Parts: sequence; structure tokens; C-alpha cells
Amino acid sequence: MTDRTAVGKVYLVGSGPGDPDLLTVKARRLLDEADVVLHDKLPGPKILDLIPEDRREDVGKRAGGEWTPQEYTNARMVELAREGKTVVRLKGGDPTVFGRGGEEMVTLAENEIPFEVVPGITSAIAGPEVAGIPVTHRDHVSSVSFVTGHEDPTKDESAVDWGALAATGGTIVVLMGVGKLPDYTAALREAGMDPETPVALVERATWPDQRVATGTLETIVDVRDAEGIEPPAITVIGAVAGQRERVVEFLEGD
Amino acid sequence: MTDRTAVGKVYLVGSGPGDPDLLTVKARRLLDEADVVLHDKLPGPKILDLIPEDRREDVGKRAGGEWTPQEYTNARMVELAREGKTVVRLKGGDPTVFGRGGEEMVTLAENEIPFEVVPGITSAIAGPEVAGIPVTHRDHVSSVSFVTGHEDPTKDESAVDWGALAATGGTIVVLMGVGKLPDYTAALREAGMDPETPVALVERATWPDQRVATGTLETIVDVRDAEGIEPPAITVIGAVAGQRERVVEFLEGD
Ligand SMILES: C[S@@+](CC[C@H](N)C(=O)[O-])C[C@H]1O[C@@H](n2cnc3c(N)ncnc32)[C@H](O)[C@@H]1O
Ligand SMILES: C[S@@+](CC[C@H](N)C(=O)[O-])C[C@H]1O[C@@H](n2cnc3c(N)ncnc32)[C@H](O)[C@@H]1O
Repeated sequence: MTDRTAVGKVYLVGSGPGDPDLLTVKARRLLDEADVVLHDKLPGPKILDLIPEDRREDVGKRAGGEWTPQEYTNARMVELAREGKTVVRLKGGDPTVFGRGGEEMVTLAENEIPFEVVPGITSAIAGPEVAGIPVTHRDHVSSVSFVTGHEDPTKDESAVDWGALAATGGTIVVLMGVGKLPDYTAALREAGMDPETPVALVERATWPDQRVATGTLETIVDVRDAEGIEPPAITVIGAVAGQRERVVEFLEGD
Repeated sequence: MTDRTAVGKVYLVGSGPGDPDLLTVKARRLLDEADVVLHDKLPGPKILDLIPEDRREDVGKRAGGEWTPQEYTNARMVELAREGKTVVRLKGGDPTVFGRGGEEMVTLAENEIPFEVVPGITSAIAGPEVAGIPVTHRDHVSSVSFVTGHEDPTKDESAVDWGALAATGGTIVVLMGVGKLPDYTAALREAGMDPETPVALVERATWPDQRVATGTLETIVDVRDAEGIEPPAITVIGAVAGQRERVVEFLEGD
């Protein structure tokens, strides 16, 4: 049995979408206090630059350009904690929104490592928001759904039911959805969604080079191509996406 | 025409779920710098106590216990900005998640008031998360939907399509859903959702008196009554809600 007094602690910390000002007070403090920060590239350069080089480890990529398997990150968190270290596992946005934070919690618990989760601002809400788009609106929608555009390729078939999402009548926010934009916009139109439904793409939200592109369910693929929108970006689909043009003239920090 | 140089600025700021450590760095700074902070009760006592009394105005209630109409808040933001003030409109969680931040943006733009939106940590994600529940999980779900349990009573009929939400197969997170819990759990069962589906209630997430209660789609109403769960609380419905018991022993800060 592990001697729990000698074991360190792991903080699963959300970095927010990339602007260091959108770190939480707690995340900001933990970045200063941690013995080691395990991170990938999603938090973005401005946040990673806050962490001294000798205290950070990139678990997003291995030498040679290969992706580090999740198993490596899991093992490394456990190993460092067993050495008595205070570890921050820094994740882009919020750790539990398509971020595998749930799996990391289970790994830690199974290895008897004390941990804490520190929520972060998710790009799924903040991305639209800083572009002037609220994901919910009293007059238009009673729900908002967040969905992955990039289904786990090891699953037998796509588990995303675009018809059911369309039927909710709520806003749809797609993460990891730049590449498959043609597929799911087509699926939503086939499910009966109005081709005139406003759609916005928010690329690198809150980064210095943030870009926003808008169109409709029918035109957005052409807009994406014309503007050259690339990941990371958020896709917002629904009446709310039309709000940007009503407010953008007075919206600062955009 | 308004002289824009003399006009102040309004920041629509999310407070997060209540723990001052979960304010963003930017929100924390703006609370110190603003001339006036317009707030209601949702940010919670710990955050409101950070703001000097002479710089804060409660727009959540009027003397006599009546609710302030949204129109009053809108008019007050515009009035203060026209006096050249730097105004923080502080909202619980994130301003655009069932928070009427979208309406406030439009009001400001229509009145030619420069504004900025500062995202906050939403209770819809952080509530489940600090209780050990990730709203998404690679193995279980490809989507998560946030929905209001308390439909706008001025709408003709409930706009929430619980059947469509059930059909997405994703996690369902209900805000303002303590009172109507019997109604929507019944609706979801009628829509064919497994009565054994795990459900969790997280009351006052991240407040010193946070409470968590768990059950299934079938038992949760009795659990709510036995434990006396009251608003504000988040309801999480789906396989992910079952994760809490796997991790809670090693979860700190819960
Ligand atoms: C693996 S998911 C992680 C999401 C993250 N946990 C969050 O809550 O924001 C990666 C996707 O998040 C979105 N994303 C993350 N940061 C972003 C940003 N700054 N701007 C736009 N999209 C972003 C993109 O859709 C990207 O493909
Ligand atoms: C009008 S909505 C505002 C939501 C807010 N904008 C957010 O993003 O968290 C109010 C509802 O938010 C939820 N809520 C807000 N703060 C909470 C907390 N600390 N714990 C649990 N639920 C909370 C409850 O469901 C409450 O009824």
C-alpha cells in the first residue's frame, strides 16, 4: 500500500481558451506553485510562456513528432505524484469538456493519488461569447448542445445523432469541427434544419490572432474555404449566431 | 448623437460558481477597478464581499422584496456609462449561459455604449466537475446538452423537447431544475431513457456549504426530498454521473 503522507497531489487544471487574463485566480497561482506542469499545446503560447521552462513538460508530443499516448500522460502524473511532487496537469479550456479530464480523474483515483479539479473557461462558451454570440437566449432557445465534430475513430459508427440535435431546437456548438464541417452541415440540413440558420466560426478565440467568420448552414463551408479558417475553432449553429452583427460595432476586445 | 469619448464602458463579467478563486484574473482585477458593480445574489456572498459597499449596487432585488425588472438593469447600465463610468455588470457563472447576457449586449449596442464580455466559469460544467463528474466522456458520450428546467412562463408552451434531448444519447445538464425535477425525469423516462440512468444533484457548487446527492432517473426525486436539496443546484443526467463514486475517495476540495 502506498504511504499517502508521502504522496504528492495532482491538480487537473483548465487553462481557459488562451488569454492569460482568462485563467482563474487559482490556476494562475498553481502555475507558480507547482513542481511540474504537464501540458500539451492547446493552452497556447501566451499561457505556456508564463511557466518557467525547467518546470514544464510537454506531454502533447514526443520527439519525432509522434503524439504521446494518453497512457504515457497517465503514467507520468502517477509517477510524479508518487515522488511527492505537486503536479499541475494543464488542459486547454475546461478539463472535462472533450478533454479526457474524466479519464484522468479515474486513473488518479485508481492509483490512490489525491487530486483536485480546477475548472477552466471552456472555448465552447467563451469562443462564441467574445465574438458577441450568447450560446443561449431567452427568446430563441431553451438549450445548447456541445458536440464533437471529430468522432473517436475507434468507435464502430459515428455516435453523434445530428437529427436528434437538430430536433432539440437549441443552439449547437461543435468542437473539433473544422474538417468535418461539410459532413455535419449536410446532416443537419437533411434533418430538416433551415438552410438559412446562422452559423459562425470562431478561430483561436481570445488569442491575439482571433478570427471570426459568419454565414449560414448553406454558405458556411464556402466561407470557411474563402477565409481559410483552421483549427482550433468553434462552430456555433443557431439563431444566436446572427446576433454578432447586431452588436459587433460596440464590442471591444474582439 | 452621443459623444463617444465621454461615454464610459460596460463589462459584462461572469463571476463563476461562487468560489472567489474561480474568478478569472480579469474579473478579479475589474472588481477592483470598476466605478460601479451592478450585481444580483447569484455570485454568492464570498465574491460580493470582495467589493466595497460604496461601489456596489444590487439590481437583483428592490426594497420591498420585489424582483427588479430586466429593463431597470438595462437602463441603469446605460445611464452609468453615459455618466462616463466604468461599469461591471457581474453575473453568476458565465454571462451567456441562461444569464441574459445576450440581451444585455444588444441593449448596450443599441444605446451605442462600448462594452466587453468577460467569460466566467459556468456552474453547468464546474458544478458536476468539482463533484467528480465530467460532462463529457470519450467512452460514453459524444455530446452534452445544457437546458433550463424552468421554462419562461410567458412562453405559450414548454419549448424544451425532452424526447429530442434523450435521443441525442448525450449527457443532459439541467439548470434551474430543482422544482421541476419530477416533471422532466418523468418526461425522460417516457421518452425511453433507462430508469437506471445515474443522476446527480450539485447544490451550491464551490460554496463552503456545497452538497452533492446521487441517485437514478427513478430514485432522484426521493433523494432530493430526503436530502432537502434546494436551489441553486445543477442536475446531471447520464452515465457520467456514475463516475463520482469511482473517484470521490481521492477527490479533494469537494
Ligand atoms: C480536444 S478539444 C478540447 C476542448 C477544451 N477542453 C475546452 O473546454 O475548450 C479541442 C477543441 O477545442 C476547441 N478550442 C479550444 N481552444 C480554442 C480556442 N482558443 N478557440 C477556438 N476553439 C478552441 C476547438 O474546437 C478544438 O478543436
Ligand atoms: C439563471 S441561471 C444562471 C446560470 C449562470 N449564468 C451560470 O453559468 O452558472 C441560475 C441557475 O444556475 C445554476 N447555478 C448557478 N450557480 C450555481 C452553483 N454555485 N451551484 C449550483 N448551481 C448553480 C442553478 O441551476 C441556478 O438555478
